[in-house]
Amino acid sequence: MLIDTAAEILISEVGPRDGLQSVNRTMPTADKLRWITALYQAGLREIEVASFVPATSLPQMADAPDVVRHALTLPGLTVMALVPNLRGARAALAAGVHKLTIPVSASAAHSLANVRKTREQMVDEVRNVVALRNDMAPGVKIEAGISTAFGCTLQGHVPEDDVVWLAAQVIQAGADETGLSDTTGMANPAQVRRLFTRVRTEIGSRTGAAHMHNTRGLGLANCLAAFDVGVRTFDSSLGGLGGCPFAPGASGNVVTEDLVFMFEAMGVTTGVDLDKLMAARAPLMAGLPGEPLYGLTPEAGLPKGWVQRRGLPASEIFK
Amino acid sequence: MLIDTAAEILISEVGPRDGLQSVNRTMPTADKLRWITALYQAGLREIEVASFVPATSLPQMADAPDVVRHALTLPGLTVMALVPNLRGARAALAAGVHKLTIPVSASAAHSLANVRKTREQMVDEVRNVVALRNDMAPGVKIEAGISTAFGCTLQGHVPEDDVVWLAAQVIQAGADETGLSDTTGMANPAQVRRLFTRVRTEIGSRTGAAHMHNTRGLGLANCLAAFDVGVRTFDSSLGGLGGCPFAPGASGNVVTEDLVFMFEAMGVTTGVDLDKLMAARAPLMAGLPGEPLYGLTPEAGLPKGWVQRRGLPASEIFK
Repeated sequence: MLIDTAAEILISEVGPRDGLQSVNRTMPTADKLRWITALYQAGLREIEVASFVPATSLPQMADAPDVVRHALTLPGLTVMALVPNLRGARAALAAGVHKLTIPVSASAAHSLANVRKTREQMVDEVRNVVALRNDMAPGVKIEAGISTAFGCTLQGHVPEDDVVWLAAQVIQAGADETGLSDTTGMANPAQVRRLFTRVRTEIGSRTGAAHMHNTRGLGLANCLAAFDVGVRTFDSSLGGLGGCPFAPGASGNVVTEDLVFMFEAMGVTTGVDLDKLMAARAPLMAGLPGEPLYGLTPEAGLPKGWVQRRGLPASEIFK
Repeated sequence: MLIDTAAEILISEVGPRDGLQSVNRTMPTADKLRWITALYQAGLREIEVASFVPATSLPQMADAPDVVRHALTLPGLTVMALVPNLRGARAALAAGVHKLTIPVSASAAHSLANVRKTREQMVDEVRNVVALRNDMAPGVKIEAGISTAFGCTLQGHVPEDDVVWLAAQVIQAGADETGLSDTTGMANPAQVRRLFTRVRTEIGSRTGAAHMHNTRGLGLANCLAAFDVGVRTFDSSLGGLGGCPFAPGASGNVVTEDLVFMFEAMGVTTGVDLDKLMAARAPLMAGLPGEPLYGLTPEAGLPKGWVQRRGLPASEIFK
């Protein structure tokens, strides 16, 4: 059997950070809080709620401390924030987040374009953030997310050796885990299986999330491929909101609704209630009126006879 | 390794039949011929070009004999037609097709709604078509396509035992092969792997194509799942044109462009040239102005540095 239907996975919702920072408009803080609450009520237990960056560069994230403060009131939620550097990490730790994620590019060209640092400088930055964390808040987890792991719109091919090297470097620098991001929508299932397997051989259980994009329609196929080789955490965003503003032509986070539907139909429990997840689109739309949302499951609706029951594959449910 | 990168697969293009019969307007015959030629020039070697049904029920297919006559001039192309019954089979065989496909529903409710026959009556119809073929044109292949194999919008759950039983029945009735269709977009990858494996255990190498829909976004993931368990023929339609008019709420054939991109990027050769495939959208659009087409690969374009070379995975191409 390729599928272990007893497996449980974690869907890490990135919409409030990755999604909102890709939209030019700023969602009012009150709407963000309502949206995050709705995501939580749907059963999501890890949410990337904000980015700690200068408000001059990303005004959409200026309310990050307020958003974190609210998210911390939701019991059992892992409150995650993106930090590009030590200054951001200091602010995020002061705000009380449970988990930091630091983007490090496998592509040299993308690293310079995205954070104006070389890859080696970013590894040093991870080391500095780890030291700060050890000092300020030792219980906080640090994830290094390897972006452009499957290809780059600036430099094209990204050698797999570079990705494996970088994964080892950030773990040696003290990161708790590192995931792989298809920032540019260039990944294919064979590559996903190969690269996650190589990274796991290198860093074992410190292998983190698959962050796939649906740019060329392969988002869910790539998530399936990652699942097949043992990945159990998947990033996605409600309504497919977001992409990467610094990777030209890149777009399309995996849609949380479709991702949850796929796994639940397979009998792989996500902890997420699909009806409540669909309902979480309302506060998103209320906060960003007219913003295009994606997702074929919301459009088609759930199949006739569908009753979501934790731990039971759809084939059992329907019997 | 889960993936055999030396494998070759067959993409069976269903747009000129499945796609066009889902559109209310009728594409002019001259445009159909230009479109089929463009699909052939892109490297497609099996095309379902028409449906042999009474012109009163599907006026879009009234020119089926003319379309077949043109398709037969393209060297090396397997010219395929759908026939719902013996009368259609007689007309298709007279027109000179290479391959017939007969839809048989695993769902009792869908069978009655779609062809006004029980499943057992459809097995008898397959047997009659086989006898006619043996008499008129023994070299012609007959495929029975099992529709609603993964669920039904009318009856909901379709028992897997019914699908396996029906597959065995149509092969015993003399069909050369039988594929499984997710007519209603209800399939998931675990189910696809399980059911194709069960069918292969029952009928061996007579297991045919995977005909997946993208109704809930899982089309490519389901094709990947089918590939993993040995399926080597995949139905899809250019621009995702088509669905099933008799399964309410069902829509969305897998997009040929995205499917070819996925497999070629994995290093699985399809024989299809992606640039020429994209170019085949022009005659389709010319013949059906304003008709919405789908496909994220055409929208995003091919990745930077992409050079398609037969038999080489993208990871090698990019090196």
